[in-house]
Amino acid sequence: MPAVQDSAVGRVLACVDEDLDHARSRLFELLRIPSISTQPDHRQDMQRAAEWLRGQLEELGLQTAIMPTAGHPKVVGFHPGPPGSKAPRVLFYGHYDVQPADPLDLWHSPPFEPQLVEGPRGPRIVARGAVDAKGQSMMFIEALRAWKTAGGGIPLPVIVLMEGEEEIGSPNLEPFLKANQADLRADFALISDTNMWDIDTPALTTRLRGMCNCEVTLKGPGMDLHSGLFGGSALNPVNVLARILGDLHDKDGRIQVPGFYDKVRPVSSGQAAEWQSLGFDEAAFLKGIGLTTPGGEKGVQALQRIWARPTADINGIWGGYAGPGSKTIIPSEAGAKVSFRLVPDQEPQAIFEGFQRFVRDRLPTGMQVSFQAFGMAAGILIDTDTVWARAAKEALQQEYGRPAVMIGSGGTIPVVEQIKRVLGIDSLMMGFGLDDDQIHSPNEKFELKCFHKGTRSHALLLGKLAG
Amino acid sequence: MPAVQDSAVGRVLACVDEDLDHARSRLFELLRIPSISTQPDHRQDMQRAAEWLRGQLEELGLQTAIMPTAGHPKVVGFHPGPPGSKAPRVLFYGHYDVQPADPLDLWHSPPFEPQLVEGPRGPRIVARGAVDAKGQSMMFIEALRAWKTAGGGIPLPVIVLMEGEEEIGSPNLEPFLKANQADLRADFALISDTNMWDIDTPALTTRLRGMCNCEVTLKGPGMDLHSGLFGGSALNPVNVLARILGDLHDKDGRIQVPGFYDKVRPVSSGQAAEWQSLGFDEAAFLKGIGLTTPGGEKGVQALQRIWARPTADINGIWGGYAGPGSKTIIPSEAGAKVSFRLVPDQEPQAIFEGFQRFVRDRLPTGMQVSFQAFGMAAGILIDTDTVWARAAKEALQQEYGRPAVMIGSGGTIPVVEQIKRVLGIDSLMMGFGLDDDQIHSPNEKFELKCFHKGTRSHALLLGKLAG
Repeated sequence: MPAVQDSAVGRVLACVDEDLDHARSRLFELLRIPSISTQPDHRQDMQRAAEWLRGQLEELGLQTAIMPTAGHPKVVGFHPGPPGSKAPRVLFYGHYDVQPADPLDLWHSPPFEPQLVEGPRGPRIVARGAVDAKGQSMMFIEALRAWKTAGGGIPLPVIVLMEGEEEIGSPNLEPFLKANQADLRADFALISDTNMWDIDTPALTTRLRGMCNCEVTLKGPGMDLHSGLFGGSALNPVNVLARILGDLHDKDGRIQVPGFYDKVRPVSSGQAAEWQSLGFDEAAFLKGIGLTTPGGEKGVQALQRIWARPTADINGIWGGYAGPGSKTIIPSEAGAKVSFRLVPDQEPQAIFEGFQRFVRDRLPTGMQVSFQAFGMAAGILIDTDTVWARAAKEALQQEYGRPAVMIGSGGTIPVVEQIKRVLGIDSLMMGFGLDDDQIHSPNEKFELKCFHKGTRSHALLLGKLAG
Repeated sequence: MPAVQDSAVGRVLACVDEDLDHARSRLFELLRIPSISTQPDHRQDMQRAAEWLRGQLEELGLQTAIMPTAGHPKVVGFHPGPPGSKAPRVLFYGHYDVQPADPLDLWHSPPFEPQLVEGPRGPRIVARGAVDAKGQSMMFIEALRAWKTAGGGIPLPVIVLMEGEEEIGSPNLEPFLKANQADLRADFALISDTNMWDIDTPALTTRLRGMCNCEVTLKGPGMDLHSGLFGGSALNPVNVLARILGDLHDKDGRIQVPGFYDKVRPVSSGQAAEWQSLGFDEAAFLKGIGLTTPGGEKGVQALQRIWARPTADINGIWGGYAGPGSKTIIPSEAGAKVSFRLVPDQEPQAIFEGFQRFVRDRLPTGMQVSFQAFGMAAGILIDTDTVWARAAKEALQQEYGRPAVMIGSGGTIPVVEQIKRVLGIDSLMMGFGLDDDQIHSPNEKFELKCFHKGTRSHALLLGKLAG
C-alpha cells in the first residue's frame, strides 16, 4: 500500500531531521578514533573503531561480527528485513580507516578532535575522515536507524560491510569476499564514498579510475660519500632517480611507460559533449587549490583528464640529507612512491611491469633497483539502467528537486571492481562529498548540509527499494 | 747551528713517538664532543669543543682567545717564537666542527664514542671527525707540544686559528679575517685537511675545487591533494622537481646550466700526463665504494673528473609522503639540496644565478620557486715553488723516504681562497688523510699510522722552517 509506505517515509525523514544533532555526535565519537590503517602504531585504534561500529550495528538489531583478516578487521552486520520481503538485498560497503593526518602543522584544529565550524555554506564538520569515509558511511547507518525508530523497522534485507583497509588499497578484501561469498550474497552493492556535482546537485558516479601504486628504491654507493672527493666519479642515486622519474612524462604530459596507452579507450563524442555541458570551471577548480595552470595531458578537456585519462604522480620522494643547513654528500640511496591512476581496460599488473621496465631501461650499470607494489585496481564503468540506479535517481530527485547528474571520479575504489568480480554484482555509487572537502589533506571537512540531506537521500532510497 | 737544530729535531721526534698514546687520548677527548655545526641543537657542543681547544693551546703557552662570530666561535692562539726569530710566521688553520653523523644505523660504533680498531693497515681511529678535521688539526698541535716539551720551545712564530663552521661553508670566516687582519698577519697559511696519495706516499695538495651550495624549494598546490580527485589537473611539485633536476646533466654527463663551462680551463697536456703517471686505478676506487661504473663526464680521464672538472650533485631531496606504506597524494611542496663543485675561474655566485635561471626557465606557470644559498667558494691553484712548499717537500721526503706527489683534491676548503684574498698569503696544504677514510660518511676513520707520521712530519716542517 504505497500510501502507508509514503507516510512511513514521511515519519522516517522527520526522524532524520529531529535526530540530526545526535547523529552528528555519534559521527564525532567515531572521528575521535585515529584509525590510520597505513601506520602500524595505530593498530589498536583500528580495533577500537571496529568495535565502536559493531556497537552501532548491534543497536540497530543487526546480527554483527568483527571478522579478522591478515591486516585490519572487517565489521559486518546482517538484517533479513521484514518477513517475506521481496525487496532487493543491499550490500552496503563503507570504510572506517583514514589517511595519515600529516602535515599536522597545516591543520587549524587537531585532526582527531572533530569540530563543527561555521563555513560559507553553513556549519561543516572538520576532522580527518569527516567525509572520507566515516561521515559518508554513517549516513547510511543513520538512515537505517531512522527506519528502525520511525519507519517500523529495517525495510529491506541489508548487509553492512565496513572495512579498515580502503586507504591502503584493500589488500585483504578480495580473500575476504571469496571466503564469505554466501553470506555476502546480495542484489547490488551500495557505496557512499563519492562526490555530488555541487552542494545543490546530486550525482551518481558511474566511472572510477583504477590504480597501480608502488615504491621504487635505487641503491648506488655502499655508503654516503663526500661529494667533493667522489663527485665526478661516483654515481649519485638521487641524480639518477630524478633523471628517470623526470622522464615519466613527455613535454605534452603523456606518460612514457612502454605500452601505457595501448588499452586506453578514447572518450566517445557523446560522453565528451555530456561532460562539456556540465560547464566545469577548471580555472575556479584550480584557484581553489592555489594553482593557475592545469597539469596533465595538453589539449585534453578538463573533466576527461580527471575522469577518463590515466596519470602518473610521484606521491613522495626521498634520498640524502633533508635536515637543516647542508650536507654535501652523494647519498647511497634514493626512493620514491609512484602511483598511476588507470582507466578501464588498463591492467594494473601490466602497468607495474611496464614501469619496472621503464626504470631498468634507464638505470646505469652498477646501480641496484628494487620495487614494492601497494594497491592495484582496475578502472570501472557502471550501468545506470538498473532497478537500484533508477531508485537512487528518484530518491535524489525527490530530496534535491532536480535530477542527479551522472559523473565520473578520478579516484579509485578497488572494492567496486572486486565486488563485481568476486560477488558478481554491480555497485551503486551515491555519495555526498564535495570537491573542496580536502580529503587526504589537512582540514578535511564534510558540510553538515551534505551529511543531513545525504542521510535523508539514503532513507528515501531504502523506502523506494522496499516499496 | 744546524747540528744543535738536528739534535733538537731528533729529541722532538722521539718525544712524538713516546707521547703517541697520550696524543691519541687527547684526540679522543675532542672526538667525544658532537660538534655538528649545521644542527642548531649542537650549539652548546660547539662551545664545549672551542673551550677544550683553547685549553690545549693554553698548555702550549700560546696567548689564546675564543672569538665569537655571528655563528660558531673561532679559537685563536698566538706565539712569537724564540726571541729575534727570523723564521717565517705560520698561520695554522684547522676546524673543530664536523658533519652530521646520520645515517646512524650504518655506524659500527657510536659516532661520538671514538674507538681504536685493528684494521688491515694497523690500528685506526673510528669516529665522526676522526680525520676531518679533528685528527688532522691535532697533529699540528701535538707537533707544537713536542717542540715545547723536547725541542726547547715553539721554534718559530705561530698563529693557530681553529674555526667551527668549515662544514657549513665558513659563512663568518671572511668578516673575521677582515676584522683581525693585523693580528693574523703571517707569511703563509698551513692547512692539514687533505689526503696523501696512499698510506706510504705523502702529498701536497695544489688544487682544490670550489663550491656553489644551495637549496631549491617548489610550491605547487596550497595543500596536499588526493591524487585521484586532482590527478590530471593539478601540477605535482615532485614531478616537476624531478623533471627539472633530471635535466641538470645531458646524456654525456655535462651540466646544462647556462654558461656553466664558460670559464672552465682545460687541463694542460703536461698536467694530464703527470696525473696519468700516478696510475690511478678507478675500478678499484669504485669497488671500494660499492660501484662498478663511473659517473661524471664521458670520455674524461678519471683524476681530471675529480680534480679538475666541475660537478652537480643532489645532496638531498624531499617531498610528499615518505613513511611506511603509501599515501596517494599530490604533495604541495618539494625541495632539494643541490651543490656544484667548481674549478678555478668559475664564479660561485654566477653559477648560483645560472642555476636559478635554469630552474625558472623550466618552471610551469603558477608554481612558486625559492632558493637558499649555503657556502660559496672559488676553486684554487697553489704555487709550489715557495720557501714553505720546498720545506714541506723536504720534511715529507725525510719522514717517508720518498718524494711527495703534487695532487689535486675534489673537495673544497673555502678558507684557502679567503686567506689569499683577505690576508694576501698562500696556503700550504699538507694533509695525511686517505681516500678510504669515509669522511662525511658512517664509520669515518683515521689510520693511527697517518696520525703518528703526520705529527712527525709537522714537527719536521716546523724544524726546517725554523732552522
